[in-house]
Amino acid sequence: MAAQPHGIQALLFDVFGTVVDWRSSIARDAAPFLARHLPGLEGAAFAAAWRRRYQPAMEAVRTGARPFTKLDILHRENLEGVLRDHGLDPASLPEAELDGLNRLWHRLDPWPDSVAGLHRLKARFIIAPLSNGNIALLLNMAKRAGLPWDAILGAEASQAYKPNREAYLRTADILGLPPEACMLVAAHNGDLAAARRCGFRTAFIARPTEYGPEQAKDLAAEQDWDFVAPSFPALADQLGCPA
Amino acid sequence: MAAQPHGIQALLFDVFGTVVDWRSSIARDAAPFLARHLPGLEGAAFAAAWRRRYQPAMEAVRTGARPFTKLDILHRENLEGVLRDHGLDPASLPEAELDGLNRLWHRLDPWPDSVAGLHRLKARFIIAPLSNGNIALLLNMAKRAGLPWDAILGAEASQAYKPNREAYLRTADILGLPPEACMLVAAHNGDLAAARRCGFRTAFIARPTEYGPEQAKDLAAEQDWDFVAPSFPALADQLGCPA
Repeated sequence: MAAQPHGIQALLFDVFGTVVDWRSSIARDAAPFLARHLPGLEGAAFAAAWRRRYQPAMEAVRTGARPFTKLDILHRENLEGVLRDHGLDPASLPEAELDGLNRLWHRLDPWPDSVAGLHRLKARFIIAPLSNGNIALLLNMAKRAGLPWDAILGAEASQAYKPNREAYLRTADILGLPPEACMLVAAHNGDLAAARRCGFRTAFIARPTEYGPEQAKDLAAEQDWDFVAPSFPALADQLGCPA
Repeated sequence: MAAQPHGIQALLFDVFGTVVDWRSSIARDAAPFLARHLPGLEGAAFAAAWRRRYQPAMEAVRTGARPFTKLDILHRENLEGVLRDHGLDPASLPEAELDGLNRLWHRLDPWPDSVAGLHRLKARFIIAPLSNGNIALLLNMAKRAGLPWDAILGAEASQAYKPNREAYLRTADILGLPPEACMLVAAHNGDLAAARRCGFRTAFIARPTEYGPEQAKDLAAEQDWDFVAPSFPALADQLGCPA
């Protein structure tokens, strides 16, 4: 690849919320299960309840209280917790049904601009997820959705969950790049702040409906990120990638 | 992806010799350096001498005598050893020249059929390297050559060098697949034998000039591998991948 004037060589992407719409996908695809087993629970509420257990589950790994455990396993534990919270004993369900539900995270739909934008960015940069998702989850998602990653990086490769420093710094090291040649692309100000503290460049992509119509956070850039864009193609424009 | 009748979901590829022609690439691209510094040494002999140190260097990691060390570092140590063997002190050379030479392994040319064959195989299977190369090496190689991997796996992801069992078994585990859903594609009978002992399916691709015109080993399949083919497109034919 030609040298980039800004020195950025790799774009590392947050995935849940930034590349894919986890909330709508889980809400829609869990609906048949909910209709059978928890008819009072709406898909969006189920998705939100499942996702609320995401950060606390990773926190045990971040603090060292628990050895690194990949997200498929945390998702499964969190799923069982949500079901119990709603009075449904997971042990009463067939394993295949629980596993199928857990694998909905491998089948999330991208935002409408994601695939086209990634193709443009890939022509000029290394592109890879820097997600807390595990490799199989991200690979299966990419294969289904057509996300053209150059490699699948993130928590499982670095054995660390964002926003711990090791998640960013080990990713740069794996790529053989200094942190300043890496840019995190994310819809979350907190993730970008952690990446910036490690020396990464930063790009904020607004995804104002990630948490639904009444989303209260991450509606706008909260720092002077290196780039701020409403979509991946808009970021590609700013980075000078041909259409 | 549709279920495969043979149950194979992922094709994992040996890279050096199977996907790319390391010998011709190194011989050609090291020639300007050799002309300047070691005018008596031919490119092919230099490539062979560098490669001869490959297995012994990994052996220290395989036996546990040395912690996992990525191939870029072993290649660099081996390079310095080869230069010393030929009376050239690496400390007398600019760091950029040594590093540029070491990065020739990131710029190997694929065999003429590799890219077209991988595209066909990718339409039906997960495709990823299961190489002793590190992630940056394999990613940079893929980006330059157009190798359309779904993910970059292998020694750095599994923290183990082939033919140790962990290299194969941890790769299957990362993919969330049982070993029998994984097939190693390789030009080396020994690599395939180790993969088979782990439960992998096996495909032998003949690369009878990997070691030059007088190659003496791996000219033919030495076991009844699941598939034997003269090229990646021929393997795609056998696996029923549309042209």
